[in-house]
Amino acid sequence: MGIVVRQIRRTDKSVADAFASFGVATVHEAQGRSGLMAARITPIYPGAHVSGTAVTVSVPPADNWMLHVAVEQCQEGDVLVVAPTSPSDAGYFGELLATALHTRGVRGLVIDAGCRDVAELRQLGFPVWSRCVSATGTVKETLGSVNVPVVCADQWVRPGDVVVADDDGVVVVPRGRAANVLEACGAREEREAQTRKRYQAGELSLDVHGMREELAHKGLTYVDQAPDD
Amino acid sequence: MGIVVRQIRRTDKSVADAFASFGVATVHEAQGRSGLMAARITPIYPGAHVSGTAVTVSVPPADNWMLHVAVEQCQEGDVLVVAPTSPSDAGYFGELLATALHTRGVRGLVIDAGCRDVAELRQLGFPVWSRCVSATGTVKETLGSVNVPVVCADQWVRPGDVVVADDDGVVVVPRGRAANVLEACGAREEREAQTRKRYQAGELSLDVHGMREELAHKGLTYVDQAPDD
Amino acid sequence: MGIVVRQIRRTDKSVADAFASFGVATVHEAQGRSGLMAARITPIYPGAHVSGTAVTVSVPPADNWMLHVAVEQCQEGDVLVVAPTSPSDAGYFGELLATALHTRGVRGLVIDAGCRDVAELRQLGFPVWSRCVSATGTVKETLGSVNVPVVCADQWVRPGDVVVADDDGVVVVPRGRAANVLEACGAREEREAQTRKRYQAGELSLDVHGMREELAHKGLTYVDQAPDD
Amino acid sequence: MGIVVRQIRRTDKSVADAFASFGVATVHEAQGRSGLMAARITPIYPGAHVSGTAVTVSVPPADNWMLHVAVEQCQEGDVLVVAPTSPSDAGYFGELLATALHTRGVRGLVIDAGCRDVAELRQLGFPVWSRCVSATGTVKETLGSVNVPVVCADQWVRPGDVVVADDDGVVVVPRGRAANVLEACGAREEREAQTRKRYQAGELSLDVHGMREELAHKGLTYVDQAPDD
Amino acid sequence: MGIVVRQIRRTDKSVADAFASFGVATVHEAQGRSGLMAARITPIYPGAHVSGTAVTVSVPPADNWMLHVAVEQCQEGDVLVVAPTSPSDAGYFGELLATALHTRGVRGLVIDAGCRDVAELRQLGFPVWSRCVSATGTVKETLGSVNVPVVCADQWVRPGDVVVADDDGVVVVPRGRAANVLEACGAREEREAQTRKRYQAGELSLDVHGMREELAHKGLTYVDQAPDD
Amino acid sequence: MGIVVRQIRRTDKSVADAFASFGVATVHEAQGRSGLMAARITPIYPGAHVSGTAVTVSVPPADNWMLHVAVEQCQEGDVLVVAPTSPSDAGYFGELLATALHTRGVRGLVIDAGCRDVAELRQLGFPVWSRCVSATGTVKETLGSVNVPVVCADQWVRPGDVVVADDDGVVVVPRGRAANVLEACGAREEREAQTRKRYQAGELSLDVHGMREELAHKGLTYVDQAPDD
Repeated sequence: MGIVVRQIRRTDKSVADAFASFGVATVHEAQGRSGLMAARITPIYPGAHVSGTAVTVSVPPADNWMLHVAVEQCQEGDVLVVAPTSPSDAGYFGELLATALHTRGVRGLVIDAGCRDVAELRQLGFPVWSRCVSATGTVKETLGSVNVPVVCADQWVRPGDVVVADDDGVVVVPRGRAANVLEACGAREEREAQTRKRYQAGELSLDVHGMREELAHKGLTYVDQAPDD
Repeated sequence: MGIVVRQIRRTDKSVADAFASFGVATVHEAQGRSGLMAARITPIYPGAHVSGTAVTVSVPPADNWMLHVAVEQCQEGDVLVVAPTSPSDAGYFGELLATALHTRGVRGLVIDAGCRDVAELRQLGFPVWSRCVSATGTVKETLGSVNVPVVCADQWVRPGDVVVADDDGVVVVPRGRAANVLEACGAREEREAQTRKRYQAGELSLDVHGMREELAHKGLTYVDQAPDD
Repeated sequence: MGIVVRQIRRTDKSVADAFASFGVATVHEAQGRSGLMAARITPIYPGAHVSGTAVTVSVPPADNWMLHVAVEQCQEGDVLVVAPTSPSDAGYFGELLATALHTRGVRGLVIDAGCRDVAELRQLGFPVWSRCVSATGTVKETLGSVNVPVVCADQWVRPGDVVVADDDGVVVVPRGRAANVLEACGAREEREAQTRKRYQAGELSLDVHGMREELAHKGLTYVDQAPDD
Repeated sequence: MGIVVRQIRRTDKSVADAFASFGVATVHEAQGRSGLMAARITPIYPGAHVSGTAVTVSVPPADNWMLHVAVEQCQEGDVLVVAPTSPSDAGYFGELLATALHTRGVRGLVIDAGCRDVAELRQLGFPVWSRCVSATGTVKETLGSVNVPVVCADQWVRPGDVVVADDDGVVVVPRGRAANVLEACGAREEREAQTRKRYQAGELSLDVHGMREELAHKGLTYVDQAPDD
Repeated sequence: MGIVVRQIRRTDKSVADAFASFGVATVHEAQGRSGLMAARITPIYPGAHVSGTAVTVSVPPADNWMLHVAVEQCQEGDVLVVAPTSPSDAGYFGELLATALHTRGVRGLVIDAGCRDVAELRQLGFPVWSRCVSATGTVKETLGSVNVPVVCADQWVRPGDVVVADDDGVVVVPRGRAANVLEACGAREEREAQTRKRYQAGELSLDVHGMREELAHKGLTYVDQAPDD
Repeated sequence: MGIVVRQIRRTDKSVADAFASFGVATVHEAQGRSGLMAARITPIYPGAHVSGTAVTVSVPPADNWMLHVAVEQCQEGDVLVVAPTSPSDAGYFGELLATALHTRGVRGLVIDAGCRDVAELRQLGFPVWSRCVSATGTVKETLGSVNVPVVCADQWVRPGDVVVADDDGVVVVPRGRAANVLEACGAREEREAQTRKRYQAGELSLDVHGMREELAHKGLTYVDQAPDD
């Protein structure tokens, strides 16, 4: 506690930025179904979709002092990831801190705790993924740490990892795997585009993906409805 | 398990379609306060309102194979109703399956489990009522059944029943009662239109519905506030 | 039970109305972090922001009779506050009652229970903050009371108190403190406007609020990331 | 609503009783992983384990009148299964009704709603599986039905079906399948007894069930821990 | 905030003590179904049953300093009632504070927040009714108040009121009504003893309470089960 | 995925075992309020208290195959820690696997998912801390890993770390810090024993810990109750 790590190794910015064209579900699949934060983390307003490099903050319950410390460590293209050391629904984050982050080019905030000033944040266009909306305030008494590895909503996040967030939730991609996962996302999207076209043309997934044989093999049986049930 | 029933008896399409002009709360009241799914089933985006005939799917936990099988059984005017055999928050359904259903004229999906690709579904205009939003994927390993009766979110749904869904939730109308319930909805709406006009004119429900006498009879007492409390 | 108090002492209308320019989080802070309703009370649609004087209703579980009684006690600028005597998720309130309240100039409704007709209420522009959305109906069998003090979502609300509600939730300001709290809101907002400008100009809160010394005093340590972790 | 079905066809008593020697998990497996009630239904005290034939009750929210009607339809070896038509956490059931049921030889109660008098029920030895403990009372105003099929905690229960309940929850076995499922339970238990002995002797399930080959085939890899991580 | 009220007016000790022979459900009914705390407040171990006079504590979130202040205000026969000013699941209370209260003759603690040292408290025989069990600690930074009226788990509690708690939950009886409610409890228990005897003798509540006529009047219909369904 | 790490570096057995004399709350405090698992992890029966060295298992949702693989990696004094890669309430663990672990001297199991056979586990004396009780079964289809670092209930657990569990929940102590934390636990317990004695002798914590001055300094005010409120 009480450590701020500067000059972290971030995922290459062009790689981190490129993730914003892929949905969270796609990224999660493309990296082998890992990295998905718990479903309790939801966007405070619909329609936002960002990617960026994680600046992590470990905070005490109901104490947002370290968010102020973290702002200074942020640069354009970052996403702030905040994890309390014990569960807290307090409203750690609101419009003033958002203004500070927005000014520095931060893309959004992910917090396993509460957020407030929802209307103002929507107007400002600064998206937040949080555990709850709560107007309860916090204090500034106890130190935490910035840019140490944290567990946020069931995921291990290290500073500089890629964070992708949209209406489906939040997924984390480790820095060391980011380039490969990005490529896998592209490949996956391409395959899905092919599939989509065939579906739109009325083809069935049973045929497109050749599932009929395996289904029959497992014993799937087709019957007609009896005269009346 | 492992049964697909074809050629189900659907509620008459004109009847099923006509339900879309009535809200879920109205339909629920009009059929004697029955058929309402549990409140955990909510729309993934606001403003959708559909009705249609149920194609039912019983699925294993975290396995969406049978959704692919079900697509073939769907026709224009249907609503897909999906119930896992044990509780699951997995993301069974996303944009690709939605494209397939949308192409066939399916009106929407009701699932007592998770849904993903929320942003894409909103853009496509394919509404889903689900237990949660979740980007977690599913496997294709185990059979389930299509068009067997299922319990979905506390309600018994049989293939061909009418399903009505809006911002308030989802209600099921048994095929055999659909015509009568539709008529009752119309009658109810008409009465409410009368009431609405009188309320807009400033009349009180106490007078419109003649409640004052019964209230007094039960002992309702009017007092003025004491000088200070 | 069974009491309706008329001619309650309301907070001065100009004071109650003026609160609508301040967010719930601001009001909560300005009155010393008190009066905030439990976070389970959420708006049925985003973007509403109202303030007004409380007309309170104590209702039995799943019985909305007293809401009809309460309408008569409402006047322009009021907010109806409804608390069940035991927990209930029933849908006490819908579009018809909203029409009646809207016609009388009521600003909105706060209820620690369920609400229905969400689509119609959004269209009408009558905001509701509720514990859940539920199409389940209620009966009209048992008396409750109007304009008695109630506990609603963890807060003590007295008739005539100020209620402020927005996307962050609901806060209650006691009548006797309303003028002072309003003033404190204004002062707070002014200070925040100063801060916002400095943040927008790129200044850090660490400097604006002079936090660096205290942080160092508590032992905050800055380090550079090791060559590799 | 308002129907009481007498002289229901119960599962053979010797069959229904015999299920009490098998745990809920065993029964659930033995009938192909179906019939398990939602996990929200839990025992009010630990250690109870019963089986019996279902007498079903469909009740309005917060109204326990039909429980009194149902008592008369119960006989020795029954289990009362109570499902509200809309969700309710009210305390429908307490020590007096339990005394009446206990006197008639009823084995226990399953209710997707609240229960009260927990201490007295434990002392009486009348087990209840409920959604919650709640001292809130109910009224006696509205009819429901007895011995009609009900959906209780996600399961379809018909009068005369077998209900098995223990610390793990509640499972329902359809009357028509009860004899076969009972046999399957016995066979399963026997196999498990063999397995248990081999485990107690220190054998590994990897060997007992011959899993090693399939695991290796799927790619499982054994490594030793690196010098330091 | 920051007020400690000494020499509060307690309910007469003999009255407060006498409530311990009545269950929470009985007391709740006897005072007209009011005063019941939310069902989220549960005992940390089964079998405890206490009554006493409330010493109230209003505490900041995750700060238990005022519990230490409150100990001094407690005397034999009291029950400590603790309400955080905003929701908190922190573990405010453990074995050391329990030892202090136990030494002074305090009967138990009710807290709308977390409790820890559950095993030690069970061994000591000091019962707690809490919102959750949590080993997370608290700080001692901010003042609260002792013996001011508080809202605890949806109920308004004033110092000196009677608190009754058992396995069913917690109920509050206002000081001014305590003697009357106690009498009503006795009368109710007596009536129930009569009823219990008749139930034990095999009489049906339908007859004991003469419900058959009213049920028939509302339309209850008895039918025999059809040959097969 | 698909990795099993053998020959992990465990915390010294005498150190790991010694933690069993300290409660979870004490350990959590002694290591600076870190390492506490989320409160959703609760014991399946009261009174168990264990410590041991972690063998970790990362499992797919609703698939318990890797638990069988993990058994072989366990030795006397271990605690098995199981974390699903996406949330699952399935019943991964029951009496048979417990028998296998018990035979090898494993102390207990911690799982952020479901457990079944609660009655049998209590009888066997094999304690489990789980997210829920659920009789739903799992499949054996997909690989996971054994003895890789996992996030379990919000905590980062590495193979060989110390796990302590009691009625308050579960806390993890990193291997590298275990000896120091153990010492701190002892020191803390000693201080608390002193405090306990003084409390038992009737001394107040206000005096024992010298809090009065600081409270007065912050503005705490003592008043007597007004003649009537």
